[in-house]
Amino acid sequence: MIEWFDDLKLGMRFKSGEVTVSKEDILRFAREFDPQPFHTDEEAAKDTVLGGLAASGWHTAAIAMNLCVQMRPFGPHPLFGAGVDDLRWLKPVRPGDTLHLEGEVVELVPSRSRPQGVVRIKWTAYNQNGEAVYTFNPIGIVPRRPA
Amino acid sequence: MIEWFDDLKLGMRFKSGEVTVSKEDILRFAREFDPQPFHTDEEAAKDTVLGGLAASGWHTAAIAMNLCVQMRPFGPHPLFGAGVDDLRWLKPVRPGDTLHLEGEVVELVPSRSRPQGVVRIKWTAYNQNGEAVYTFNPIGIVPRRPA
Repeated sequence: MIEWFDDLKLGMRFKSGEVTVSKEDILRFAREFDPQPFHTDEEAAKDTVLGGLAASGWHTAAIAMNLCVQMRPFGPHPLFGAGVDDLRWLKPVRPGDTLHLEGEVVELVPSRSRPQGVVRIKWTAYNQNGEAVYTFNPIGIVPRRPA
Repeated sequence: MIEWFDDLKLGMRFKSGEVTVSKEDILRFAREFDPQPFHTDEEAAKDTVLGGLAASGWHTAAIAMNLCVQMRPFGPHPLFGAGVDDLRWLKPVRPGDTLHLEGEVVELVPSRSRPQGVVRIKWTAYNQNGEAVYTFNPIGIVPRRPA
């Protein structure tokens, strides 16, 4: 069971549950945060670089966060991070797509000054066709097991 | 007026309008996408690493996107990107905080194969006290002026 930084190992893998993204979800998020035609207007989206309606990349990012939270990769400790590297949107997320997340621990750096460590997990979101649609590598901070 | 990749210059600066983030906004976003106590429960948040209720980092990211979209830094062309580097959450965003975004063009790379270029703008969000709360550097893709 993973409870502390010390329980995480390089190469450890995680797999989330699934979530289906509806057209209504895409439109609602985009109207509030990313009101551009390829995210808010099904007809106008056809003539854009995305070739049809697709989720805002930030919506995909938020959905991926929720899949992470449900997974609890750090056991009882929250998902708390200083930032993210290598965030890439690889393919459009379309209405009706079903996404899940897979992750692998790629770096573990214990802090020299604090009772915690930095955990780097490379996460990738896949759609129902097994296509990678999104990837990110957050700077996770997890407490060390008390001595 | 900025209309094409060719109109952007290194060092060019942008400044957005302001938006105030309410407690209700913070709770609503977090319940859907980042349901952890420091984002969803005002009382429980006091005893966490954030020392009180704060917006999900992905909420801050989505708010920043909206400030970008309102600014239209690429004129008539959409804000469209392959990804983001150097995304960092620098300080908590609290209920009632008023944020704005400032950006500077830090890199311009014309494509060798397509009629477009990659624009790197380092964006930073500030709160009402002038404190930097969030920064990100998206890989923006903007068409070149037709010959």
